[in-house]
Amino acid sequence: MKRLILLRHGQSQWNLENRFTGWTDVDLSEAGRQEAAEAGRKLKQAEIYPQIAFTSYLRRAIHTQQIVLSTIERDWIPEIKDWHLNERHYGALQGLNKADTAEKYGEAQVHEWRRSFDVIPPLLTTDDPRYPGHDTRYAHLSQAQLPLAESLRDTIARVKACWEELISPCFVNYDTALITAHGNSLRGLAMTLLNLTASEIVSVEIPTGTPWIFELGDRLNVTESHYL
Amino acid sequence: MKRLILLRHGQSQWNLENRFTGWTDVDLSEAGRQEAAEAGRKLKQAEIYPQIAFTSYLRRAIHTQQIVLSTIERDWIPEIKDWHLNERHYGALQGLNKADTAEKYGEAQVHEWRRSFDVIPPLLTTDDPRYPGHDTRYAHLSQAQLPLAESLRDTIARVKACWEELISPCFVNYDTALITAHGNSLRGLAMTLLNLTASEIVSVEIPTGTPWIFELGDRLNVTESHYL
Repeated sequence: MKRLILLRHGQSQWNLENRFTGWTDVDLSEAGRQEAAEAGRKLKQAEIYPQIAFTSYLRRAIHTQQIVLSTIERDWIPEIKDWHLNERHYGALQGLNKADTAEKYGEAQVHEWRRSFDVIPPLLTTDDPRYPGHDTRYAHLSQAQLPLAESLRDTIARVKACWEELISPCFVNYDTALITAHGNSLRGLAMTLLNLTASEIVSVEIPTGTPWIFELGDRLNVTESHYL
Repeated sequence: MKRLILLRHGQSQWNLENRFTGWTDVDLSEAGRQEAAEAGRKLKQAEIYPQIAFTSYLRRAIHTQQIVLSTIERDWIPEIKDWHLNERHYGALQGLNKADTAEKYGEAQVHEWRRSFDVIPPLLTTDDPRYPGHDTRYAHLSQAQLPLAESLRDTIARVKACWEELISPCFVNYDTALITAHGNSLRGLAMTLLNLTASEIVSVEIPTGTPWIFELGDRLNVTESHYL
């Protein structure tokens, strides 16, 4: 039997400050670290031990995973970091306070940016310091791969590619995998795994710090799923 | 220009208690964590940033590396964990207090176990709970690979294989690599890199938490080396 664990990182400094984060590399808050340790304790209690783990290029997810693996005494398993698992890129909204933005553009506009499937938030320009082309960690990406902003559809497409090309092949060698990522990149995985429609996935809210267990059949079809 | 950084983990709980550690998976002490952060600050000050990092299966090295990468804001670089970088396996000495052992077997015997090149400490039996065959992290190794105890020569042989097969090929894609490991596994790398003899390497003492920088030429020959 194969098993996949999805885990959304806990509270970050900017969640606390109610700011659009996206690819901004904000660290966990103390509460976020505690959520990660609690997620580890839940896995330990359920005796679910990943043999390989995947996370994004962003430290709030990387640190969450490190805390989980340390809690379950599996620091030594292979960890693979991939930018495809990053949070949705929020373009020119990144760094803005969500309440201020709602005041400026209206609640309806902000809701559309945040919760629609196809709408792309305001684009960055390539001379903006927030443009990922200025960040050494993305130096190996082509300009076509570097987002100026993403719709949820865009995020889900890159996450799906990562599942198909990088993660799912690992089940040839491993039985249990952990993916520690972000609200929208995990939506991408859930949509792919559960064959959800666009209108279904936008209403899925994945809780932070709560391991979401997928039991997988021989063709990596989901046979059962539940939160710990 | 290519560059390699060797880093020995800082103080562990058992260093503090003066016990033979070897493959026992003891964590860093608070002083050890501070040494790791200081190593990170030294790299930052020297503007030496690894693009890939290698460490052992043991948490005192894994956590040292995590703290270093976090300090230099390179959490996102690829990290590869390999048991070949583990500390020398100390066999049936693991867990014993060094002073008690010296009292029991004599200072000369303990010095020979610790500082000779060829002498193997007392072997574990395979029914000993300390035998690595009982540890899930080594489940993929053959019995021939699982040590009952190692001489420094044994440790150095496996570290050399890891350098040749896993680490040195990474310089095709990366310019700067970090290896965070242990006193004796780092001796293995230093012996290989600097072409030292057995009698030379046994007298090399690598300080903890102090990045050791190797500048490498085109054939990965060492052109210069210094501690930060």
